[in-house]
Amino acid sequence: MSELRGTCIFGQSGGPTAVINASAFGVIRTALDADCITRVLGAAHGIRGVLDDMLYDMSKEDPKELELLQYTPSSALGSCRYKLADPDVDDTDYRRILEIFKKYDVRYFFYNGGNDSMDTCNKISKYMLKVGYECRIMGVPKTIDNDLNGTDHCPGYPSAAKYIATSCMEVYKDAQVYDTGMVTVIEIMGRHAGWLTAAAALATAKGAGPDLIYLPELTFDMDDFLNKVERIYREKKSCFVAVSEGIHYADGTFVSEAKTSATDGFGHVQLGGLAAILANAVQQRLQAKVRGIELSLLQRCASHCASLTDINEARLAGEMAVKAAVEGTTDKMIAFQCSRAQGIYNCEMVPIPLESVANVEKKVPRDWINEAGDGLEQPFIDYALPLIQGRPDTAQEDSLPRFARLKKVRAAAK
Amino acid sequence: MSELRGTCIFGQSGGPTAVINASAFGVIRTALDADCITRVLGAAHGIRGVLDDMLYDMSKEDPKELELLQYTPSSALGSCRYKLADPDVDDTDYRRILEIFKKYDVRYFFYNGGNDSMDTCNKISKYMLKVGYECRIMGVPKTIDNDLNGTDHCPGYPSAAKYIATSCMEVYKDAQVYDTGMVTVIEIMGRHAGWLTAAAALATAKGAGPDLIYLPELTFDMDDFLNKVERIYREKKSCFVAVSEGIHYADGTFVSEAKTSATDGFGHVQLGGLAAILANAVQQRLQAKVRGIELSLLQRCASHCASLTDINEARLAGEMAVKAAVEGTTDKMIAFQCSRAQGIYNCEMVPIPLESVANVEKKVPRDWINEAGDGLEQPFIDYALPLIQGRPDTAQEDSLPRFARLKKVRAAAK
Repeated sequence: MSELRGTCIFGQSGGPTAVINASAFGVIRTALDADCITRVLGAAHGIRGVLDDMLYDMSKEDPKELELLQYTPSSALGSCRYKLADPDVDDTDYRRILEIFKKYDVRYFFYNGGNDSMDTCNKISKYMLKVGYECRIMGVPKTIDNDLNGTDHCPGYPSAAKYIATSCMEVYKDAQVYDTGMVTVIEIMGRHAGWLTAAAALATAKGAGPDLIYLPELTFDMDDFLNKVERIYREKKSCFVAVSEGIHYADGTFVSEAKTSATDGFGHVQLGGLAAILANAVQQRLQAKVRGIELSLLQRCASHCASLTDINEARLAGEMAVKAAVEGTTDKMIAFQCSRAQGIYNCEMVPIPLESVANVEKKVPRDWINEAGDGLEQPFIDYALPLIQGRPDTAQEDSLPRFARLKKVRAAAK
Repeated sequence: MSELRGTCIFGQSGGPTAVINASAFGVIRTALDADCITRVLGAAHGIRGVLDDMLYDMSKEDPKELELLQYTPSSALGSCRYKLADPDVDDTDYRRILEIFKKYDVRYFFYNGGNDSMDTCNKISKYMLKVGYECRIMGVPKTIDNDLNGTDHCPGYPSAAKYIATSCMEVYKDAQVYDTGMVTVIEIMGRHAGWLTAAAALATAKGAGPDLIYLPELTFDMDDFLNKVERIYREKKSCFVAVSEGIHYADGTFVSEAKTSATDGFGHVQLGGLAAILANAVQQRLQAKVRGIELSLLQRCASHCASLTDINEARLAGEMAVKAAVEGTTDKMIAFQCSRAQGIYNCEMVPIPLESVANVEKKVPRDWINEAGDGLEQPFIDYALPLIQGRPDTAQEDSLPRFARLKKVRAAAK
C-alpha cells in the first residue's frame, strides 16, 4: 500500500441521531492524529458544504469540545438531504466536487449517513475513479432506521431503541394509573423498516410495554386492529399499542397518508399524525379514553438516554473508517459483524463495498414477527437487547446536557 | 401530645408524576417503622380504594421492592380523579369513609396529590372532626403543574421540568441540522399555570432552547405570534416555540379548544393537539417546514431523567407527613420553604393548613415573565435551576428501568 498524503473532508448526512457526533469524533480525532492526513476539514451540511465550499478547519477546535461530541446529539456540522444526480446524466455536481477536492488537495473523504448517503458516497467514489483522481472514500454507517444492508445494525439505532423502550415502559406505567381505563397509541419512526417500532417489544419483554405492535413490514388492517384493541380493552381496561409511522393498507397507502402530503428532498412522503388518526378511530369504536402519542424528533436526539454500547461503536466506526483508508481501503462502508452466542455479545468492524449498501433497505425478518403480526418474537429481543447496554456518563452542566461547542472556523485553501 | 395508636391508610390521587412513588416510599417506610402505627394500608386508586374497601397490606411487600418505588414513575397504588361532594349537600361518601376507618381502626390518613386532592383531604379532615372520630389527616404535595399554594414548589415538578429542559435542548439541536430551515412548536402540559412550559427557558438559558415561550398566565394573540415567528425565521432560518397547552385568547377560549371537548372527572377540558394547530398556522403563513411536537404523557412519567433533588424531597415530604402526624399534627399539608441566597439552595419542610392549599392555583409571577410575554426572566431561572439538580442512580435491569413490583395483598379487616 502506497502512503497517500493529503487533506480529508468529513461530512454528515441524512437524519441526525443521538450518536452521529460520536462517529464524527472518531473520524476527526483519528484523522487529526494520522501523519499522512495533512488537514482535517468538516463539511457544513454534508455534501452541500463541499459544493458550496463551506468547510471548517477541525484543527482549530478545542480537543475537549471535540470529545464532548460523543454526548452531543444531532449533526454538529449540519446535515443535508441532497441527492446527487446520476453522473452519466448530469455531472455538474461531480465536477464541482472534483474542483473542491483539487483546491484543498483532498485525498480522503469520509461520509456518515444512511442508505441515501452511502449512495452519494458510492457515486463520488466511482466518479473519482473514472476521472483518475486518487482519493480514498469511506462510508460510516448511521441511521436510527437500522435499515442498512450488510451490517448487523447501524449506529444511532441502539440509542433510539433504548429511548423508545424506556419511554414505552414509563408510558405503560402512566397509562395503568386510573381505574377508568385508557387506550394509548404511540407512534414511532420508520417509514419502511420496523426496527424502531420493534424496540417497543423490549418494554413488553420487561412486562411493561405495548400489547400490540404494528410494523410496516406487514399489511395493516383497520378492522382487525380495532377488534383486537376492543378485546384487550374489555379484558383489562387498558390497551397500549405501538405503531410505525409507515404502516399501510394492502394497496400500499399509508394509514397516515390522508393527513399530509408534503415531501422531503428525496421525494419521501413526510409522515405524522398517525397516532391521532388511530386514537380517533379507537375512540369512535370504544367510547374509551384514548391518548395518541407521537415520539417525533425526541426519539432520534435523546442523547440523555443513549446506549453506551452505541456511543462506543459509533466512535469506533469513525476511527476504523480513517484507519482503513490510511491503510489503503477505499469505496467501502464500515459494517458491524456481531455474534451473540451463549449470550455473549461481540461486535467486529469490517469494510464492505459501498454499492452493496446503497439504496437497499433491510427489513425486520418475517420470522422475528409473531404469526398474528402484532408483536415480536424472542429472536428480536436477543438481537436488540445487547445493543442498548450501558449508561454513559454524559457531560452535564447544572444537571443539564453540556453539548460540544464548536468554533467552526472556515478553512483557507491549501 | 397524646399517643394515637391505630392503622394508617395512604392514597395517591390526581395525575401521576415521576416521583409520586418516592413520596409513597417515604410514607410507607416511615409508617411501617412507627410504633404507634399498627398497620399500613395502601388504597387502590386513592379515595376510591377507601370507598370500595380495596386496601393493600403494605407489610406484605418486599422491603427492597418498596425502595425501588423511588425510581418508579406513575402511581404504584393507582390513582383517581374522584371529587367528593360537599358534605353538607351529600355526606354518603363521608359516611362510607368513616365506616371503613372504623372497620380497620384507621387513625392516620395520608393523601398524596395536587389541589383537588388537598381539597379531598381537607373535606375528610373536617368531617372526621365534626363527627368526633379521632384521626390525623395529612396531605403530601404532588403535582407536575407546580401550582399548589403555600409551598415553594411541588414534588414532581422538578423532574418534569428537567425532562422538558433536556428534551428542548435536544430538539433544539435536531432542529438546527438542515440548511433548509425549520419551525418547531413544542406543546407542554399546564392548563392554567405555566410552570412546566417555563422550564423550557432553562434550555434557552443554556443557549439551546426555544426562541419564544408562551404561558397561560398571559393572553395569546395569534397574529402577534405569527409575526414574531416569521421575523425570527427570516432572520436565522429556524424558530423554536414552546407553548403551554393552556394558552388562550383574550376571551378565555383555549387556542386548542376547537380540537376536542372531552372532559375529565373534575370537569376540566381535555386539551391536546395544540402543537398541530399552531404548526399548521405557521405553515400556512410561512410555507416553511414545520414540526409540531406534543410532549404528552412523556413529561410526567420520565423517571429516567428525574431530578435527584426531587426524588429526595418527595421521599422526605412523605416521611415528614408521617412524623408530624405521629407527633400530633393533623389537617395539614407538608409545604416546602426554600431559600436560594448566595446561590445556596436550602429546603425546609413545614406543615401548613390544608384549607390554605385546597383549590387555589399558584401562577408564574408576572414579573418573572418578560415584558413582551414571550420568554422568562432570570428570577425564574434562579428559582428552577436548583430544583433539577442531581442525577439519580436509578435501578436498571438490562439497561432498562427496573420498576418496583408490588404484590398488592388485600388487607383483612382488623
